[in-house]
Amino acid sequence: MDERTGLPIVGMVGAGQLARMTHQAAIALGQSLRILADSAHDGAALIAPDVVVGDYRVLEDLHTFARGCDVLTFDHEHVPNEHIAALAAEGVAVHPGAAALRFAQDKQAMRERLTAMGVPCPRWAPITDAADLESFAAEVGWPVVLKASTGGYDGKGVWVVGSADEAQEVLGSGTELLAEERVAIVRELAADVARSPFGQGAAWPVVETVQRDGINVEVIAPAPDLDDETAEYAQSLALRIAAELGVTGVLAVELFETAEGLLVNELAMRPHNSAHWTIEGACTSQFEQHLRAVLDYPLGSPAPIAPVVVMANLLGGPDDVVPKALDERVHHLMAHWPDVKIHLYGKQFRPGRKVGHVTALGADLATVRRRATEAADYLMNGDRT
Amino acid sequence: MDERTGLPIVGMVGAGQLARMTHQAAIALGQSLRILADSAHDGAALIAPDVVVGDYRVLEDLHTFARGCDVLTFDHEHVPNEHIAALAAEGVAVHPGAAALRFAQDKQAMRERLTAMGVPCPRWAPITDAADLESFAAEVGWPVVLKASTGGYDGKGVWVVGSADEAQEVLGSGTELLAEERVAIVRELAADVARSPFGQGAAWPVVETVQRDGINVEVIAPAPDLDDETAEYAQSLALRIAAELGVTGVLAVELFETAEGLLVNELAMRPHNSAHWTIEGACTSQFEQHLRAVLDYPLGSPAPIAPVVVMANLLGGPDDVVPKALDERVHHLMAHWPDVKIHLYGKQFRPGRKVGHVTALGADLATVRRRATEAADYLMNGDRT
Repeated sequence: MDERTGLPIVGMVGAGQLARMTHQAAIALGQSLRILADSAHDGAALIAPDVVVGDYRVLEDLHTFARGCDVLTFDHEHVPNEHIAALAAEGVAVHPGAAALRFAQDKQAMRERLTAMGVPCPRWAPITDAADLESFAAEVGWPVVLKASTGGYDGKGVWVVGSADEAQEVLGSGTELLAEERVAIVRELAADVARSPFGQGAAWPVVETVQRDGINVEVIAPAPDLDDETAEYAQSLALRIAAELGVTGVLAVELFETAEGLLVNELAMRPHNSAHWTIEGACTSQFEQHLRAVLDYPLGSPAPIAPVVVMANLLGGPDDVVPKALDERVHHLMAHWPDVKIHLYGKQFRPGRKVGHVTALGADLATVRRRATEAADYLMNGDRT
Repeated sequence: MDERTGLPIVGMVGAGQLARMTHQAAIALGQSLRILADSAHDGAALIAPDVVVGDYRVLEDLHTFARGCDVLTFDHEHVPNEHIAALAAEGVAVHPGAAALRFAQDKQAMRERLTAMGVPCPRWAPITDAADLESFAAEVGWPVVLKASTGGYDGKGVWVVGSADEAQEVLGSGTELLAEERVAIVRELAADVARSPFGQGAAWPVVETVQRDGINVEVIAPAPDLDDETAEYAQSLALRIAAELGVTGVLAVELFETAEGLLVNELAMRPHNSAHWTIEGACTSQFEQHLRAVLDYPLGSPAPIAPVVVMANLLGGPDDVVPKALDERVHHLMAHWPDVKIHLYGKQFRPGRKVGHVTALGADLATVRRRATEAADYLMNGDRT
């Protein structure tokens, strides 16, 4: 409880863009997010006053940080699960809890659990050596998708291999692995929901996520031409996963759409790139909803506020985007696209790094997509004539 | 220029709710608002990291604060005009500038200037003694509205007097005064616009502002049943005032609607209560627009995003609203009105003090008004059965 305001204090471990945007939402609720940052230069540490610099892998740092927080939550899934369990055992309110979060931290545990629940997944197997891989490939065919059970993100920790030979290096690296069949994907979708400790759930419209080189570049809400039945199925599935796994906060369920139906790809238990569009595009943004959920407040309406919303990520390109050029490009973007909303994360530019996003709203899918993606492309690459 | 981000730094003098909400908008633009606060407990000081505590009436404090800012702007109009002029003379970029801001600081100067521009105003006269007042009342009739030329806000510094006797105390107080005729008001409107140093202007839809005891309690966007011609006239008038007075940033023109047409009541040159609805209700919020304008960025689209948007102020009521009850009431409000957006300013509750606002969007005027005003009433007064 913040004695100055009489309102609760949420502590978020991690100070990237998710914490940054959660702080924006916290302000409206009369709060101020407390943030555990790796460094004072992290995106969220630049814009919030209540920042502790510490190491999320060190239990004592987490302890110190949690003191005075009403609830602890996360900007990423890299906090050791045993630390989260230890904090909870000492009475710290942690959302999502260790038992749920495990399924976002460990892909093998996630696959086992979802399979046991009867949730459709790509065929998969744990892999310890080349023989395991050969045997799995004999069943599903090459190429096979190898994944690190833990620690991967944005295409990192994923390898598509055409033979056991190609997998030699990763097999020998000591990384805990699982293999998945390479699914014939029509497109990728995401079903984003929130669930509170009380058990209330809320689902945003199902979106299409467009990937380039394994990194999400564009999100279209709602997913174009998705039939109602499939959309409702995806939402129900995500709400069911949230309930059965005991997720509290936002749950993003990444899905493959295939000719045979939907398959679950990944789970994330925090605000997620696939729901950034909700800031302007939904009655309740995922950041506000995550705060409501982890505080066990009633959830807000997830209703969209425009027929079409498109978010395009700003990915660091060639490093000619020096700070001066960035400010100049922001000017030009605003002049050319006065209706496109800009979100910059206060990050240093590096090739492929997510440094911001833009969002466009409207009625016509083609127009809205073009405006969002052209604005993003311009901001990252400038005039290339 | 912030060397960490390559983006400009805006400094805002004053740390109330306007600075608080401007910081939220700054975050999306990759920035962090620098704030000059009276105290570390001010609403905006609770949520931003770059806060300087100082006295806005002391030039040296303003100097210190301005160092390193790309532009200086204001959360209120109480900074001495001569200090603003002095800063500008030394090369500090200040928006709005002293010459424009004078007309928001000094009601007599404003009336003189608007009258010279041919802008319709209530009849008015400078008042130094009872004889002036008697003579003015002989022309316009009693009662007469007496106003302090400087320093008034939210109904403070305004007296409705039925005779020179009733005005005795205020006439003897040494306050510089002007008198205005008491206009037969149909309702009050506001035309909110922004103007950049480059000269670009943008106008939000004209709104109706509902007052209770001289304090704004509700804003309806757009103003119901306002004919297009009058709405366009009000927008043009506000843009013309902004241009002729050299306003940079947001300009709020408060208007009286009378049987004979519109009259200008007050001017404010900063984000204004009458445009809080733009946070969720317009493509570009007044806070983002103010930042764009003072940075001489191109302005954003002021288009509304719903047919009806209603904002209701949260005014501190009887002081039984202790912190614990507030958090409990926030729960209930969220449960009952999942689509109503809450904004709490981090302020101590005092009777009549603006401590937050709520906003509702929708298609039906009566429904949206009821939801916003009932939610606000509930949050302030709780269950009164």
